[in-house]
Amino acid sequence: MADPGPERPPDPASLLALLGRGTGTVSEVFVARCRASAARPFLIADDRRWSYAEAEEIVRRVAGYLATVAGPAERVASFVGNRPEALWTWFGAAWAGLVYLPINREQRGELLADQLGRSGASVLVTEAAAVADLPEGLGALGIRLVLLLDQLESLPVGWPPVVSWSAVNGAAPIDPVRRGPGDLAAIMFTSGTTGRSKAARLPHNLFVRNAARLVDGYRLRGDDVFHNWLPLCHLGGLLHMTMTAVIAGGTVALFPGFSASRFREQVDRTNATVICGFASILHFIWAQPPRADDPRCSLRVGIIGGIPGDLKRPFEERFGMWLGENYGMTEADPITLPTPGVDAADTSGYPGGDFEVTVVDQYDRPAAPGALGEILIRPRVPSVMSLGYEGDDDATVIKWRNLWFHTGDWGELDGLGRLRFKGRAHHYIRRRGENVSVAEVERILGQHPAVADCVVVGVASPVGEQDVKAVVAVRPGARCDGAELRDYLVGRMAGFMVPRFIEFRAELGRTELGKVSLESARAITGDLFDGDQTAE
Amino acid sequence: MADPGPERPPDPASLLALLGRGTGTVSEVFVARCRASAARPFLIADDRRWSYAEAEEIVRRVAGYLATVAGPAERVASFVGNRPEALWTWFGAAWAGLVYLPINREQRGELLADQLGRSGASVLVTEAAAVADLPEGLGALGIRLVLLLDQLESLPVGWPPVVSWSAVNGAAPIDPVRRGPGDLAAIMFTSGTTGRSKAARLPHNLFVRNAARLVDGYRLRGDDVFHNWLPLCHLGGLLHMTMTAVIAGGTVALFPGFSASRFREQVDRTNATVICGFASILHFIWAQPPRADDPRCSLRVGIIGGIPGDLKRPFEERFGMWLGENYGMTEADPITLPTPGVDAADTSGYPGGDFEVTVVDQYDRPAAPGALGEILIRPRVPSVMSLGYEGDDDATVIKWRNLWFHTGDWGELDGLGRLRFKGRAHHYIRRRGENVSVAEVERILGQHPAVADCVVVGVASPVGEQDVKAVVAVRPGARCDGAELRDYLVGRMAGFMVPRFIEFRAELGRTELGKVSLESARAITGDLFDGDQTAE
Repeated sequence: MADPGPERPPDPASLLALLGRGTGTVSEVFVARCRASAARPFLIADDRRWSYAEAEEIVRRVAGYLATVAGPAERVASFVGNRPEALWTWFGAAWAGLVYLPINREQRGELLADQLGRSGASVLVTEAAAVADLPEGLGALGIRLVLLLDQLESLPVGWPPVVSWSAVNGAAPIDPVRRGPGDLAAIMFTSGTTGRSKAARLPHNLFVRNAARLVDGYRLRGDDVFHNWLPLCHLGGLLHMTMTAVIAGGTVALFPGFSASRFREQVDRTNATVICGFASILHFIWAQPPRADDPRCSLRVGIIGGIPGDLKRPFEERFGMWLGENYGMTEADPITLPTPGVDAADTSGYPGGDFEVTVVDQYDRPAAPGALGEILIRPRVPSVMSLGYEGDDDATVIKWRNLWFHTGDWGELDGLGRLRFKGRAHHYIRRRGENVSVAEVERILGQHPAVADCVVVGVASPVGEQDVKAVVAVRPGARCDGAELRDYLVGRMAGFMVPRFIEFRAELGRTELGKVSLESARAITGDLFDGDQTAE
Repeated sequence: MADPGPERPPDPASLLALLGRGTGTVSEVFVARCRASAARPFLIADDRRWSYAEAEEIVRRVAGYLATVAGPAERVASFVGNRPEALWTWFGAAWAGLVYLPINREQRGELLADQLGRSGASVLVTEAAAVADLPEGLGALGIRLVLLLDQLESLPVGWPPVVSWSAVNGAAPIDPVRRGPGDLAAIMFTSGTTGRSKAARLPHNLFVRNAARLVDGYRLRGDDVFHNWLPLCHLGGLLHMTMTAVIAGGTVALFPGFSASRFREQVDRTNATVICGFASILHFIWAQPPRADDPRCSLRVGIIGGIPGDLKRPFEERFGMWLGENYGMTEADPITLPTPGVDAADTSGYPGGDFEVTVVDQYDRPAAPGALGEILIRPRVPSVMSLGYEGDDDATVIKWRNLWFHTGDWGELDGLGRLRFKGRAHHYIRRRGENVSVAEVERILGQHPAVADCVVVGVASPVGEQDVKAVVAVRPGARCDGAELRDYLVGRMAGFMVPRFIEFRAELGRTELGKVSLESARAITGDLFDGDQTAE
């Protein structure tokens, strides 16, 4: 890579202004940044480095190649780890006017085939190590061409033509294909904790304006190095740590995943200044042996969701950095932003300017300040959030009812308008005006000697709101019935928390992640124990 | 009907407060009003009158009957003229927890069968005079039972069982079935000017809170008599002129349709104080021979959409009344309300409190004050607008993009936040930042001696926004081509208005209402005249 030279990185806030407006497309800001910061470093991966000028040259060729194998606005799926080629595919697809569709490299089997099939992608970029994980009948899933990053001896049956990534080197570079800020840039699968994962349709401007909001909110700079271990199939990797770098004129340091033991070495080697992640990585980093030079390491800013209140200040002091809380999700991010030096450790930040945020009761009516309810958001400006779910207009309409996006999260707004995230909505049940904590009922129920496992859910009540239902697996050899469990609980929790319905199962059918299907748990059948029927 | 007696009509604004909150259901407010104003007149139709107490008694029985023939939340379609039974069906369905589905009595043939089939209704209320208009295979459309208002000798083939409306007299009255303010109350078909009519799903609270907004905005009172000639299948008839009466405690005077010649007699006979409608009825009423007592007639308030600026003051003076402008549509109404004594004649009112209103450019970005753009709205409170389109989530998502409802109307907001409605969006074409008036281009093009008929539409432009396309029918015997028409237009309008594409057809295929299919007019085929290709 060329020496960065004396060029002064442009003011990050100026990049969108440089485009003349507060909206843009991925290739507009990328090309503007490559011109403004040609000699500055864009990417560090392993021992290699690329300047913005070098990145532009590669992206031009990748776009040129993709334009020859995919029709206008077709989709390019990506099933690779955090490698430079994933970034070249992202920027190359945007440059060619195509849609980027990253699939989580951890995905497997039936779910992977389902996502590929739903993706509508005609081209798949993947790596040799991923071939064994991919389904055999790729062609039947709509993939017409595979672009393979590494050499491979033999290919699975039912695959379409496979071309080596090196083919892009021979492609003719092209100029950016014009797209609008509201046009589809990427499709990302949500985690789908309450059902099949949904494919969120994300517009160009989301990756541009929202990145500029993060740059503003976290005071990111042209000399920042973004320690990017987050998968590029999530907004954390692609928006918070990549597009922010482009907007700010900084550098992406790409890592294949999070490693607590190698973290400090990675920071020192790349002079990383910005990290991104969740409470868990703070705990993992904190647990590493302290070093005398920790306070003098290059780290400056952490973009974190769910900072543990008791860890914030010690962590900041140990590494000489600032942790700022941020709330968002695949469909819209960042919804809130921190205010440096002002935020209490236990808030999830202030609404970040581009979104209205409210907390409501079960009828979508605003809750009083400090009261718990579902967090709803809506954009103040166009094209900063999901365009809806691919092939799932029904789910989109439900999530958008009353023209608010229903996050499915519970939280509180305090008197200053700061949001406090309190968990997923299905962690709470609304019963006749009372909020029932699922975790609390499960904990008490699990203490009954006959209960091997249990899950508690809310089910629609004929009198409005919800009734509480428990699904219980009884220990082998033990015996108990609904009336006995009910009696046990009545003395141990508020009456409104006691499950009305109890279903007994041999086992709960937990997944390898320990999850129970909430849909099946919510089913109401005639043979359930019903406390309302048996009570005198 | 019992004599109204000395009872003082309750303060209209107090009815929702009486329910203890700003939301409610149709049966909640109806029963509250019947208790509060039992002896007051609710309905006048022909020579008959019903007090609120009498209305409640009928509605209890209609609900009781409907509950025996329809399952919970099933749909009751209504295909009748403006008769008392239409109102009993509306309130009875709401009372029984069912969904009211009024179909325009003017509807015929394939479109009528389509709406019935899409309705999902299991019960159809209709009248003898409508039987010949209804399709033969009613049963195949999902109707299980017909409730017929009049006697009939023979029935069409393929009809399900037919029961006389008199059966409701023998039904056991029931108490209201509990519903929530956000639950579905009615489904109404939109006019569908740009395609198949859409079935808007309207919640209970829309009919309650929005009626209260109209009562507030137009200062309606308990002694008002609502001259209701508007079809009950539209919000004008059901919301503006019926639910307002219930909220205010006033009286509905029901008429089968609008009659200019009988209008004054109807007003005098019923002491009507409130009328509702559009510019056309003002013109029709105005054209009637003036009477010396016009200024002393009982009329007090007009709830009007599109008041002609030059007619407003003379009309108000002639009839001693006030005309207030209101803007809304099936999906959301009232969006704006007038401010008595303040509004200029040429605005469409102020946003009415429950909706945000904005005017945007083609990227949904707010337009400058006074600039023309599409009118977008969104609710400030829950359940005051359509829940979406029945069986058309795709259209719902498109209309709700960026979490704004896209009205498809064009308008301007002035510096005071007042809205000026300027017509349907397809009356304008956006070409490279310029707004092209379809009517202006059509008028000039129609002046060319060879042009028999023409229609002008916008078509998506590869450079963003739209290009102008004209579809032209040439007079028999006349000859002209695209280049000639283009030359003719170039000197007569701004260059940006001149159609790029010209399609020649033998005839435009106008419907009996004079409409041309805009979809077919927008088609771009290879044999069109393309001014961009032929220009040097």
